[in-house]
Amino acid sequence: MIEKFFREDISDFQPYDAGKENFRIRLDANESFIGLSQSLKNKILSAVISVEFNRYPDPQSNKLCSLYGKYCGIDEKYIMAGNGSDEIIQIIINTFLDKGDKLVVLDPDFSMYKSYNRVRGGKTVSISLDKDFNIDTDSLIEKINYENPKIFIFSNPNNPTGGIISKKDIIKIVDKCNCIVVVDEAYIEFYGDSIIYEVKNYKNLIVLRTCSKALGSAVLRLGFAITNESILKELKKVKPPFNVNGVSQVIGEIILEDTEYVNKAVKKIIEQRDYLYEELSKINKIKVYRTNANFVLFKSINSKKINEKLERNGIKIRSFKDEVLKDYLRVTAGNESQNKEVLKIIKECVTSFEI
Amino acid sequence: MIEKFFREDISDFQPYDAGKENFRIRLDANESFIGLSQSLKNKILSAVISVEFNRYPDPQSNKLCSLYGKYCGIDEKYIMAGNGSDEIIQIIINTFLDKGDKLVVLDPDFSMYKSYNRVRGGKTVSISLDKDFNIDTDSLIEKINYENPKIFIFSNPNNPTGGIISKKDIIKIVDKCNCIVVVDEAYIEFYGDSIIYEVKNYKNLIVLRTCSKALGSAVLRLGFAITNESILKELKKVKPPFNVNGVSQVIGEIILEDTEYVNKAVKKIIEQRDYLYEELSKINKIKVYRTNANFVLFKSINSKKINEKLERNGIKIRSFKDEVLKDYLRVTAGNESQNKEVLKIIKECVTSFEI
Repeated sequence: MIEKFFREDISDFQPYDAGKENFRIRLDANESFIGLSQSLKNKILSAVISVEFNRYPDPQSNKLCSLYGKYCGIDEKYIMAGNGSDEIIQIIINTFLDKGDKLVVLDPDFSMYKSYNRVRGGKTVSISLDKDFNIDTDSLIEKINYENPKIFIFSNPNNPTGGIISKKDIIKIVDKCNCIVVVDEAYIEFYGDSIIYEVKNYKNLIVLRTCSKALGSAVLRLGFAITNESILKELKKVKPPFNVNGVSQVIGEIILEDTEYVNKAVKKIIEQRDYLYEELSKINKIKVYRTNANFVLFKSINSKKINEKLERNGIKIRSFKDEVLKDYLRVTAGNESQNKEVLKIIKECVTSFEI
Repeated sequence: MIEKFFREDISDFQPYDAGKENFRIRLDANESFIGLSQSLKNKILSAVISVEFNRYPDPQSNKLCSLYGKYCGIDEKYIMAGNGSDEIIQIIINTFLDKGDKLVVLDPDFSMYKSYNRVRGGKTVSISLDKDFNIDTDSLIEKINYENPKIFIFSNPNNPTGGIISKKDIIKIVDKCNCIVVVDEAYIEFYGDSIIYEVKNYKNLIVLRTCSKALGSAVLRLGFAITNESILKELKKVKPPFNVNGVSQVIGEIILEDTEYVNKAVKKIIEQRDYLYEELSKINKIKVYRTNANFVLFKSINSKKINEKLERNGIKIRSFKDEVLKDYLRVTAGNESQNKEVLKIIKECVTSFEI
């Protein structure tokens, strides 16, 4: 019986369904719809050709961290790179959480926080947002401190709601919560008001960043932890030696140097997101949520049918298994023609239900 | 006091010293000394240019696994890809070991098995090889079963000794040990007699492979677990969704298709390894160990001085902190002129001590 060697506490564990089936239009993973320019691609090829493939990569991704620091205006000594925020989340959990220690998350929020904590063997406590996906800061702080966790982690802007907690309130949370506070800023470029510059002022603040959204480089799997030197030293003890491959490092470096490309891409994405939000808001019987990210969350009692019709038309958007989100759909801002197509199908769908 | 949030059980933990200082000749990390051919590089550029950078990679690395399967003659359904064997080792440990569960390793062996188990919170039991770095199989099995671990992991050929356990003995170990047996075949191409074809015949066997050694692609960080479908299903539950970046996937695919390149490279490396072994064996007062990998381990009471002289000459080979290996040095087979230079300095060194 090989099963006796499997961990009992994760015997019912289900892997994340990454859903890579073939769809004509993919608006389910909050990727950027903007490909790299020819000029960027040419620079990438020159860099890739000079990679020493037979050598291990720089274990600290120093140049990449330095350029990420320039990109966001933070000294590189506060930055550590990883294989996407995913690896950084795992490193943070491994650094702080012993078996049974508590992690607090919001509900709804990015589902992988819970999953990685299950793998770790920690306990996860979920604090629910209200029906409009907001939360009173003082009561949140009180609830967190009551649970006495090691870590409180949340995404800001929130994935999947698109909502935000203001900088003032985050500072209050960091100040008053007796735990490490991790702010996942995967979508921050679409909102703007980052907490990143506060990392040197607080002992318990870690910010997560990624190249997978605004930077249009999901394929590279590059993420960053930005935090004070004391926490960073602990995280680096747990980080695998050569964690970020050398090809992603050099390609990431080239993209980070082209701030003009990044700024233009963010502007275009925000335009399309706003268009999608405005047009969805005009559709009857759909509740649309204000968004600060590159996606829009909406609610419909016919969400299942809408999703099925989109899939039949070769379009993948995000539906949810959790009870709290069962009537919701999240659609990533695509390019104009993709968004028009999605909107047309949703409109048709809603109209047909009304008959 | 931020320290109260750090895990007590790893408070003395030291990170792996990847040692990326500048040396003219690096023979410390068992990398291949053979770069990629121009024809391979051209194919790589064509593949990189057509990567969709803004999209997440294939979460299962299907094409890469399929080509790795072809490369080693195993059906892809037995294969999972990771960020180097390092990530695979972590996934295996996370899948099977709960806090306090036991992992058995050999001493000496690759130090990261222990490190990742410390991060996990498991217990590690080391079983010592004898003074010639061999071990009696029956007594090994007895010791392992006495410890009642979840996992026994070892490298074959052994890093850093270069020694091997025969296939017949490994099968006996897999058959008689009441635990998961993980055979890390990072250096198997330099030896030849793989246990990989047995994975479908045993419920408790996992084989690790890498692209970082014979395949000359350490920069990509590609590793593989090869095991039966039942274990693979469990490992995939714990695997992060998009663990292997898409650029390493496509480049790995291209290298794996060029078996002629790989075979030639292995042949050249073995020639240089044998040359290094033969020449080291001729030097007085140095004990050299028979090797089946791409490196040679040797012992000298003057190992510290030899290492210092090599470093002064811009050459980095591997020295060790552990007590059991303090008089030992491990040198990776470099190209002919590199090996000659290393041998010259070692000879000079030993001669000067004799005076």
